Amino acid sequence: MSFEEENQGSVILRRTPEYQPPASWRTWLIGRPLQTADAPHQTIGKAIGLAVFASDALSSTAYATQEILMILAAAGTVAFGYVFPISIAIVILLAIVTLSYEQTIHAYPGGGGAYIVARDNIGDLPAQIAGASLLTDYVLTVSVSISSGVAQIVSAYPALFDYRVSIAVSLVILIMLINLRGVKESGITFSIPTYFFVIVMYLTVAIGLFRALTGTLGTVTNPPDMSVIHSLQGVTAFLIMHAFSSGTTALTGVEAISNGITAFKEPRSRNAGLTLIWMSIILGSLFLGISYLTREIGAIPSEYETVISQLVRTVFRSQGALYLTVITATTVILAMAANTAFADFPRLSALLAADGFLPRQLTYRGSRLVFSRGIILLALIAIALIALFNASVTRLIPLYAIGVFSSFTLSQFGMAHRWWKIGHLTPGQEIKERGSTLRYEQGWRLKMLINGFGSICTLVVTFVFAITKFRDGAYIVLIITPIVVFMFSSIHRHYVNLAKRLSLENYGSPPRVARHRVILPISGVHRGSLSALQYARTLSDDITALHVVIDPDEALKIQQKWERWGDGVRLVLLDSPYRLLAEPLLEYIEEIASRRQPNEIITIVVPQFVPQSWVHNLLHTNTALWLRLALLFRRGVVVTDVPYEVE
Amino acid sequence: MSFEEENQGSVILRRTPEYQPPASWRTWLIGRPLQTADAPHQTIGKAIGLAVFASDALSSTAYATQEILMILAAAGTVAFGYVFPISIAIVILLAIVTLSYEQTIHAYPGGGGAYIVARDNIGDLPAQIAGASLLTDYVLTVSVSISSGVAQIVSAYPALFDYRVSIAVSLVILIMLINLRGVKESGITFSIPTYFFVIVMYLTVAIGLFRALTGTLGTVTNPPDMSVIHSLQGVTAFLIMHAFSSGTTALTGVEAISNGITAFKEPRSRNAGLTLIWMSIILGSLFLGISYLTREIGAIPSEYETVISQLVRTVFRSQGALYLTVITATTVILAMAANTAFADFPRLSALLAADGFLPRQLTYRGSRLVFSRGIILLALIAIALIALFNASVTRLIPLYAIGVFSSFTLSQFGMAHRWWKIGHLTPGQEIKERGSTLRYEQGWRLKMLINGFGSICTLVVTFVFAITKFRDGAYIVLIITPIVVFMFSSIHRHYVNLAKRLSLENYGSPPRVARHRVILPISGVHRGSLSALQYARTLSDDITALHVVIDPDEALKIQQKWERWGDGVRLVLLDSPYRLLAEPLLEYIEEIASRRQPNEIITIVVPQFVPQSWVHNLLHTNTALWLRLALLFRRGVVVTDVPYEVE
Repeated sequence: MSFEEENQGSVILRRTPEYQPPASWRTWLIGRPLQTADAPHQTIGKAIGLAVFASDALSSTAYATQEILMILAAAGTVAFGYVFPISIAIVILLAIVTLSYEQTIHAYPGGGGAYIVARDNIGDLPAQIAGASLLTDYVLTVSVSISSGVAQIVSAYPALFDYRVSIAVSLVILIMLINLRGVKESGITFSIPTYFFVIVMYLTVAIGLFRALTGTLGTVTNPPDMSVIHSLQGVTAFLIMHAFSSGTTALTGVEAISNGITAFKEPRSRNAGLTLIWMSIILGSLFLGISYLTREIGAIPSEYETVISQLVRTVFRSQGALYLTVITATTVILAMAANTAFADFPRLSALLAADGFLPRQLTYRGSRLVFSRGIILLALIAIALIALFNASVTRLIPLYAIGVFSSFTLSQFGMAHRWWKIGHLTPGQEIKERGSTLRYEQGWRLKMLINGFGSICTLVVTFVFAITKFRDGAYIVLIITPIVVFMFSSIHRHYVNLAKRLSLENYGSPPRVARHRVILPISGVHRGSLSALQYARTLSDDITALHVVIDPDEALKIQQKWERWGDGVRLVLLDSPYRLLAEPLLEYIEEIASRRQPNEIITIVVPQFVPQSWVHNLLHTNTALWLRLALLFRRGVVVTDVPYEVE
Repeated sequence: MSFEEENQGSVILRRTPEYQPPASWRTWLIGRPLQTADAPHQTIGKAIGLAVFASDALSSTAYATQEILMILAAAGTVAFGYVFPISIAIVILLAIVTLSYEQTIHAYPGGGGAYIVARDNIGDLPAQIAGASLLTDYVLTVSVSISSGVAQIVSAYPALFDYRVSIAVSLVILIMLINLRGVKESGITFSIPTYFFVIVMYLTVAIGLFRALTGTLGTVTNPPDMSVIHSLQGVTAFLIMHAFSSGTTALTGVEAISNGITAFKEPRSRNAGLTLIWMSIILGSLFLGISYLTREIGAIPSEYETVISQLVRTVFRSQGALYLTVITATTVILAMAANTAFADFPRLSALLAADGFLPRQLTYRGSRLVFSRGIILLALIAIALIALFNASVTRLIPLYAIGVFSSFTLSQFGMAHRWWKIGHLTPGQEIKERGSTLRYEQGWRLKMLINGFGSICTLVVTFVFAITKFRDGAYIVLIITPIVVFMFSSIHRHYVNLAKRLSLENYGSPPRVARHRVILPISGVHRGSLSALQYARTLSDDITALHVVIDPDEALKIQQKWERWGDGVRLVLLDSPYRLLAEPLLEYIEEIASRRQPNEIITIVVPQFVPQSWVHNLLHTNTALWLRLALLFRRGVVVTDVPYEVE
């Protein structure tokens, strides 16, 4: 045994340093297991921080403009003119949210996700709503980003159109495996594709603007099918709001930095805050640029070719190497956005599980020190969504963003409430609340106003979103969120009750076992059943051997053999006219168990045949196994398997 | 409890007469359970006997001619002229086999299937070969008959062509359910469709022959696609032999009566023998008639329309009611042929299982007193074959019949050998052999010659079949049969060895248990683990509590709690740097088990959480359950589950 012994009151057996767990197929798939002590903790600077946390937010530029156009298309191409004003409104919203989150980052240097902020400042229910919204949204981040990534691939290689669901599912599985293996969040792996995307996208926008100004941009040649354009309805306020809602998906991912503050180098909050501002500036400018150019070239929203693809090939006037480079960079950043959700979802689930709102198993770190169960769970749900919605970004979008905006609202409302509390402290006074310490601060009124305004803005957007996109699919989220919250509280109640009932507070001592009663089911009289009888004898003198009579001739033989070998133990033959095996046994055991005395314990001693290999199991009825599964959850009955060995 | 007590040395608990097992979904599907005492035993006369046993044999007229044509098609339509001479040869073979089986029926009034005759007269290996061949063939009877039945349906309703696999699978499942419910072999249910088929088929042939003689028959209008016709090769001896092999499928099912002699009224053998002769006469005449007319009308073998369908619509000059009647009758008799296999396969498997060549479970009679496991097994294999061969009779045929002919050969060789032994007894002498008593008989030489000749003929056919159809698929059977035989003998060896090792012959008494050692794995210190500790105390004073350390803080708490509540029992903390749970436990247990003293027993007492409902299981790691499954088959280690109750 590769253990070293240590004595400290209890015996502690430590693994010897050279110990390695046995290799399995898992090792091959995701790498050799890591020790708990191996858990890395590195911090990152602003430049890498931007790369790590920005992919989710920046990647939304790949689909936000297109989704605005998709809605406007209902009023014909003439409505496309509204895309730029709508984009400006969205960028203003972005600025408000950024300012608001800036304050959260400084107030929560230990990480201020919406769940934590809501839990610490408003209460359990809002925290659970925030948690449910965020989990839903992480799932959608994966589904939408991967679907959009596949749409880029399909734009470049239209022959792959029919395989888009398979490609998307394979991508999710690939990202799942990478995450099960564990990705170091720091490092160059993240920086290269993010900065590459930013550079090529700025380049595209810059060249596009230059051409637009010089009048050489032109419009899209061979636009994709125009079947989405209807011009059946006029441009209404509802339509504009509807299009605006679709565009707000550009803001998804902005909260990422506030979740991950601890990853930054000191001064953490300052670094994280500056990174957030830079991210918003890049996001806002790219989004505006893309929306403007899209309008100029007359791009058509389509399931067959993305607006980005139309833009890029118009700007570069070809579908050559430059085009493929930009499309590849876009696809990669979309995959990385999905990857971010693979870090966030398991982390939040583990947090919720540790608080008792989700199954405890989600806190367990797998062989690679990642929350493997959360990772697998996320992949499964995202795959189901992709399959269900046929990897269509347009069909997934109505479900997306509503969660983000409700968590924005709750988090900022929590912050506003926090400032209010801080403002009502006397200077110098300190109060400790759950996760953080509150101390009087100058200028709390302005800060409260900023967070309060942000909260109101995002609340309004949440409502606009829910109303305009209700029929498109937002209702699904409005149904699912309460269900998830209800599940959270049911789970929580279960754990709390269980802990109470198992608690040793005010517990005297367990009832002494006064008397054993043993039941010994036998299928025949042979060496195996006699070993079990021997074992039963060590427990008690009150033993009943039990045989279910299916074949009366067989029963007669058993009766005769038992007389000789049964050591005087009582044999009960249970008639079974319908040739049932387990049922009469269970019925008899139930009967005995229901009449048991206090302090009496009923133990079923089951002779268990040990086959040489699993194949041999097929040659035996395995009554013992079925019986034990049936009795496993029977209260007050102890089940003992006595293996009998056949060499 | 619905038991009545009786005391006869042992206690016997009999079911009260009004007892009914609880209803389940099975009751709904296949009817209420039947008592063992309800097993029916009725005998049947010749007329019904013919109906019961003939469907398999007679139904082969639905495809035998077509399969001859399929082969001849390789040499073009000119080769179709050989269909009638080949059919005559097959009918001669039928006469020989019938004569030969006639003798078996009189020699084995208790039922003389090939397996029994080979087992009693030649030996275990030939018996196993016969058994394997018959089982294979019963499976193919189902696949071929159902596929042919579906081909008839498709001929009448060509739109169903694409659904033929689904239709065939549904039919197999339907017949499986009917058999799980249990069919009374006697009775009108069988007689009506069989006699109806015989009548309408004779009618068709008679009208056809009349028209042929009067020159008004004509040829098939709109024959199906002729893509099977090649005329690439000439008519060779090999081709004729090949076609002959395909036609021999007409003989499948002839052995049915010899398996079922006990079902007949006394004088059993006489009644069964006469029935066999009648069956052969009907089979032979219908087959000749169909083959002759097929040639006359110039029918084309096809996957899209059966030859029977072409014949019937040509004879009746329409596809109206008469046509549909004959096609329906043909489909029904084909389904009934499959049904026969559902009686034969489970019965033979049970026989083989009782002899220890197949898993014992196959002898178990289900709630409706039928060998339900054999029925389900047959359905599953037949469905797999149908799916694999796309419900194509032509592709299945090369696998069929080779099994029938090898079992014919073995059975008749067994009979010949039996006559030889009888001939070498002195008159009046009697010897008992396995199943039957041998007594000197007059005329044994002739009888030996008849069976010997039959055996040689069928042996030759077996070889012809194996050679000509080798590449078409017969090789599959030639590979599978030895594998099945090998499986039989492995299973047999296992049972014999096991019985020897468990036997109480020369067995003193089991070793006394001198000392218990208890290991108590705990995940925490709470009321549940303390109950388990209480239980462990009743077993032994040598108890080790075991906790696997994944979270060191948690372990510290457990250590402290154990000091207070652990009753002085030793606690071992098992370090698990890779966060594995079951593995270190198992390793520790293995280590202790390997050092155990003789007469020492190691018992693992596992505290088992009893959830209020199965859903709650999802909220717990269920380590206890996984641990017990891992230890279930560990020799020398007893596993005890102590449930702890949480109301």
